[in-house]
Amino acid sequence: MTSNQPIRAAVLGASGYTGADLIRLAARHPNIQITALIAKAHAGQPLGQVFPHLGSLDLPQLVTSDEVDWDSIDVAFCGLPHGTAHVEIAKLPERVKVIDMSADFRLRDLSTYAEWYGGEHGAPQLLSDAVYGLTEHYRDEIAGARIVACPGCYPTAVLLALLPLVKEKLIASEGIIIDAKSGVTGAGRSLKQNILFSEAGEGLSPYGIGSHRHVPEIEQEIGMAANQAVIVNFTPHLAPMARGELCTCYVQLPSGTTDADLRGALRDAYAASPFVRVMDEGVIPATQHVRGSNYCHVGVFADRIPGRAIVVSAIDNLVKGSAGQALQNFNVMHGLDESTALEQLPLFP
Amino acid sequence: MTSNQPIRAAVLGASGYTGADLIRLAARHPNIQITALIAKAHAGQPLGQVFPHLGSLDLPQLVTSDEVDWDSIDVAFCGLPHGTAHVEIAKLPERVKVIDMSADFRLRDLSTYAEWYGGEHGAPQLLSDAVYGLTEHYRDEIAGARIVACPGCYPTAVLLALLPLVKEKLIASEGIIIDAKSGVTGAGRSLKQNILFSEAGEGLSPYGIGSHRHVPEIEQEIGMAANQAVIVNFTPHLAPMARGELCTCYVQLPSGTTDADLRGALRDAYAASPFVRVMDEGVIPATQHVRGSNYCHVGVFADRIPGRAIVVSAIDNLVKGSAGQALQNFNVMHGLDESTALEQLPLFP
Amino acid sequence: MTSNQPIRAAVLGASGYTGADLIRLAARHPNIQITALIAKAHAGQPLGQVFPHLGSLDLPQLVTSDEVDWDSIDVAFCGLPHGTAHVEIAKLPERVKVIDMSADFRLRDLSTYAEWYGGEHGAPQLLSDAVYGLTEHYRDEIAGARIVACPGCYPTAVLLALLPLVKEKLIASEGIIIDAKSGVTGAGRSLKQNILFSEAGEGLSPYGIGSHRHVPEIEQEIGMAANQAVIVNFTPHLAPMARGELCTCYVQLPSGTTDADLRGALRDAYAASPFVRVMDEGVIPATQHVRGSNYCHVGVFADRIPGRAIVVSAIDNLVKGSAGQALQNFNVMHGLDESTALEQLPLFP
Amino acid sequence: MTSNQPIRAAVLGASGYTGADLIRLAARHPNIQITALIAKAHAGQPLGQVFPHLGSLDLPQLVTSDEVDWDSIDVAFCGLPHGTAHVEIAKLPERVKVIDMSADFRLRDLSTYAEWYGGEHGAPQLLSDAVYGLTEHYRDEIAGARIVACPGCYPTAVLLALLPLVKEKLIASEGIIIDAKSGVTGAGRSLKQNILFSEAGEGLSPYGIGSHRHVPEIEQEIGMAANQAVIVNFTPHLAPMARGELCTCYVQLPSGTTDADLRGALRDAYAASPFVRVMDEGVIPATQHVRGSNYCHVGVFADRIPGRAIVVSAIDNLVKGSAGQALQNFNVMHGLDESTALEQLPLFP
Repeated sequence: MTSNQPIRAAVLGASGYTGADLIRLAARHPNIQITALIAKAHAGQPLGQVFPHLGSLDLPQLVTSDEVDWDSIDVAFCGLPHGTAHVEIAKLPERVKVIDMSADFRLRDLSTYAEWYGGEHGAPQLLSDAVYGLTEHYRDEIAGARIVACPGCYPTAVLLALLPLVKEKLIASEGIIIDAKSGVTGAGRSLKQNILFSEAGEGLSPYGIGSHRHVPEIEQEIGMAANQAVIVNFTPHLAPMARGELCTCYVQLPSGTTDADLRGALRDAYAASPFVRVMDEGVIPATQHVRGSNYCHVGVFADRIPGRAIVVSAIDNLVKGSAGQALQNFNVMHGLDESTALEQLPLFP
Repeated sequence: MTSNQPIRAAVLGASGYTGADLIRLAARHPNIQITALIAKAHAGQPLGQVFPHLGSLDLPQLVTSDEVDWDSIDVAFCGLPHGTAHVEIAKLPERVKVIDMSADFRLRDLSTYAEWYGGEHGAPQLLSDAVYGLTEHYRDEIAGARIVACPGCYPTAVLLALLPLVKEKLIASEGIIIDAKSGVTGAGRSLKQNILFSEAGEGLSPYGIGSHRHVPEIEQEIGMAANQAVIVNFTPHLAPMARGELCTCYVQLPSGTTDADLRGALRDAYAASPFVRVMDEGVIPATQHVRGSNYCHVGVFADRIPGRAIVVSAIDNLVKGSAGQALQNFNVMHGLDESTALEQLPLFP
Repeated sequence: MTSNQPIRAAVLGASGYTGADLIRLAARHPNIQITALIAKAHAGQPLGQVFPHLGSLDLPQLVTSDEVDWDSIDVAFCGLPHGTAHVEIAKLPERVKVIDMSADFRLRDLSTYAEWYGGEHGAPQLLSDAVYGLTEHYRDEIAGARIVACPGCYPTAVLLALLPLVKEKLIASEGIIIDAKSGVTGAGRSLKQNILFSEAGEGLSPYGIGSHRHVPEIEQEIGMAANQAVIVNFTPHLAPMARGELCTCYVQLPSGTTDADLRGALRDAYAASPFVRVMDEGVIPATQHVRGSNYCHVGVFADRIPGRAIVVSAIDNLVKGSAGQALQNFNVMHGLDESTALEQLPLFP
Repeated sequence: MTSNQPIRAAVLGASGYTGADLIRLAARHPNIQITALIAKAHAGQPLGQVFPHLGSLDLPQLVTSDEVDWDSIDVAFCGLPHGTAHVEIAKLPERVKVIDMSADFRLRDLSTYAEWYGGEHGAPQLLSDAVYGLTEHYRDEIAGARIVACPGCYPTAVLLALLPLVKEKLIASEGIIIDAKSGVTGAGRSLKQNILFSEAGEGLSPYGIGSHRHVPEIEQEIGMAANQAVIVNFTPHLAPMARGELCTCYVQLPSGTTDADLRGALRDAYAASPFVRVMDEGVIPATQHVRGSNYCHVGVFADRIPGRAIVVSAIDNLVKGSAGQALQNFNVMHGLDESTALEQLPLFP
């Protein structure tokens, strides 16, 4: 970072939870000037009307994408839903860097995208510009990318826990079982009956068994690390909390490998990564201990069944699982300290 | 049931959650007269002081066990902690039937008990009088038993889901992975920091990984059904809700077996069981749909990984997982309709 | 009740929370046969699809009102929204008794209705058939009524606490301040952003300050008891829980009157009312102690400010505040024991 | 602030919630070096064992007060309980500035302290050194103080809402009714049955009616502003959330005064105060919109009862109600920008 010029940022999808959390963090970033807030359905409103907790900020009011002077924008954070995201991103001038929190540029294979996301990709020409934004594993690619496709919240938690182990062949890439639990913000801010307080509160259930759209993303990355096609079990559950995601991964070990080996490999992999904390033996990750922060806590435990282990990871789905990782990628793309504006400690209780 | 004489019941451990839920249900049982409420630390207090929600009941005040005229008691429900339960039960006259909600008489093997519960069993002579009280699988034994050892909450949910499948050899008894989630009442009413509202709320984490005391009970019953020793993975999680337990069981199928086969076998097994409901294909069990009731909802789902399936069960840990099942066993023991006083529908929302 | 003929009941608005709670309770009523479930938008679906927790019931599927053979119906419970309720009720044959849980027949004055509910009443001719269904205060009128207008949830809690005191002139009818707190089910099941789990959870705020539609109902009844027009402060708050309503009423006392006098008057007023429990001095009502039940707990406390007192009442808004009170009125209308099918004890925790 | 020397801080009571939140914020303060963490019962443990969410910090382990080299400390933040706090503070060298979050130095009158806090004050000689730390109202006094007694959480919310109005005689100082609602962290981290998740969750009730220890503090400050002794009603409620406090204040207006007048006076009073936000007409404060932040939102509403108004304020009890205000006072005491290290925006959802 050689200049003191602020980097001018637009936020697409400013009325959603990921948009809001991005604004919450970016507003305190010393190098960012939030220049445009885009939220079609709320255009003309001040941000504080849509998100009263952000009402103290002195920011421009919400506008449509067409109203933005894109010449004055350096980088666009995109919190739009998949399908819409790539359409809007395709309209942006090429000089605008894009940090996309949607699913639209995560999958490297167009037919996989079509299969899981209900139709052809509308901007296939941009895919080659896009890099998978799992910061800790793709720093170099991210540093030079025009488009960074931030991973889904679940894949972030799963891949941070498993990728180094697959790469080091410390776990089998077959038969991986991922039992995931998410807070309700993972379902976004759109109105659905199952996420009403009265329905989701004081209850827990799986959903999307075998069909959750984060599956292909997990399989893509684990497959690449394993150098072979991989099929995983991924069973998400909706838990009665707003934020937080916990992935309990059940894995098979090669003969002779122990949980301590896994812990060691994870420590090595993340030695230079400030946000991934590998827990000491016996210390159990919990979502409330990362809430509101960009941390990912990972723990490894021996299984009662010989030859198996359990790898547990916890993140805040809106921060490390979305807006925080987006900002982390922004920092990497702009040669800034990776932690800039992400130093907030978890809010507990 | 040939007589209209009320059956006189004592409740040991009336100041705990399982005791309270037993009283809540038994107070409306047409054949039960609650004659003694035992809670050592609260002796001398009215029940309404310990549990204001039960203050409308006209019941005797809390006493110590010594103060009870056991000649006037026909049956004792025991909601004491393990270790204490068998000591108190051993003191009771032999003519008093016992329905024990503790762990003390669940394990058939004394050395397993000693290993998991921290020491020798203090009343081994009573073990042969005891029957494992998983109602749907041991009705005949329960009908004639003096002591019924009601299963733990987790084992209830797991075994109702898996036992018929193991017996029919529709799933492998090796490599069973059980990812369980429980509400906070599962931890009881004693004061522990991790179950304070401020600590447990808005957060989720595993606990007792590989070491939870419900493991030997699950392995005992699955092992008996499989006719061989079995080791399972059992990983419980604490979820931010008061009641409810959901077990997500990951199982291997014999070649050619499908999720529909499993669903069919479960339906057959529970055709005459009013409280186990096998969900239609695609319908997902949820704890909020059984809350406050004696129902167990079970669903079967194909796994993405070929040759595997996912069996999900949901119960209210204090009802079907404890007090409700105890009352169900009471009904079986006394030749009453199994559903008596258990007809309450789930409380949703 | 001279006959053993079941009373055939229809439920209008069977897909809402009050409808569901009515079904939950009525399904266990020994004299009721639920004959028709009406839910326009869900016609053709089984109840278990709309409310999985009621899926064990063997009930007719949801239909439109037009599909019902009203000759086969004796009584209609109406859980429709205000405005719609009176339109549907006006269509029913005169021989069908109506227990309305909406607001449409609560206000005795048509202009007050028009002012607060946004327009002229569409069935003014029925108003003279309607009785205000606050059971404990209008038993005689309810017994002979064709239409019973069950009070709103807030008015139920407030009036049970204050009416006897106003009647006995033990509190001033001027300057009554009611700070009310409700769980989220009070807002119904329709999709609104502020009742999403992620918005309502872990937060608390007032709403509808000075403009909540339960105000005229409270003022009507207190005014009648006081024999003069009354204006009250009523400030409701949304609290992060599904069920439960607590009203903290701040009142002025005539010279020489004490909190003990108020407590005594309430005890006298409710001596024959099984569901209103006046707490002993120092015992504080709490919503969790009435959850799922038809109880109302009332407590009286001296204020630090001399000459004032605080009257606190707690109910379950869906039970005593709606479906339970409706069933209680049904019992009164049919000469049954007032408690029939309402004996369920509170579900705590 | 003329020097770049870090200010060396000790935290007394580092194992409680206020201590933890102080550390969370102070750890990111550019001028503070946390030099000692004192927590008697946990001495010898690393902070991350007591508060895993703070485990990423590189801080000294917990010690007893005796183990601290007080010569190396410039300022002590005290999060000890009342009664203990003044004993420990009295032991500190006079050159150590003290920012006390306990109640011990809030009351100016020793007999009032003795009456409400159960006995004589043990360090009366220090009272004259202490300043009441309601930052927005006592900046000058705080700037020069040795001991700053941070207000209680409730008094902070109440006084920010009412003090300017009392001073300007825009509300009567008699007959003020304060209905307050707090999250469970307000009760601290010590083990009590009523704050277990299973007891406090999904329920709401008043507590300490007429006897809460924050009463004398509120009366002291309102009395001083009114130049006469004042008695208020203060009725706190426990709400099922971890953080957040909402005070709904019912007040009488002098003839001719309107809610707009009150709003205007509050805006004037807080024009230079970055953390107090006076809401526009019709915008309602909510605790979830200040969570985790140092903001206080205040709204004014007309009452239905003529001549009255409702003033509502919302804070995070652990931040603006304790640790945040403590840090704000630290900034004032050291001539720093009042917002330093308090810029974190609210965490919503």
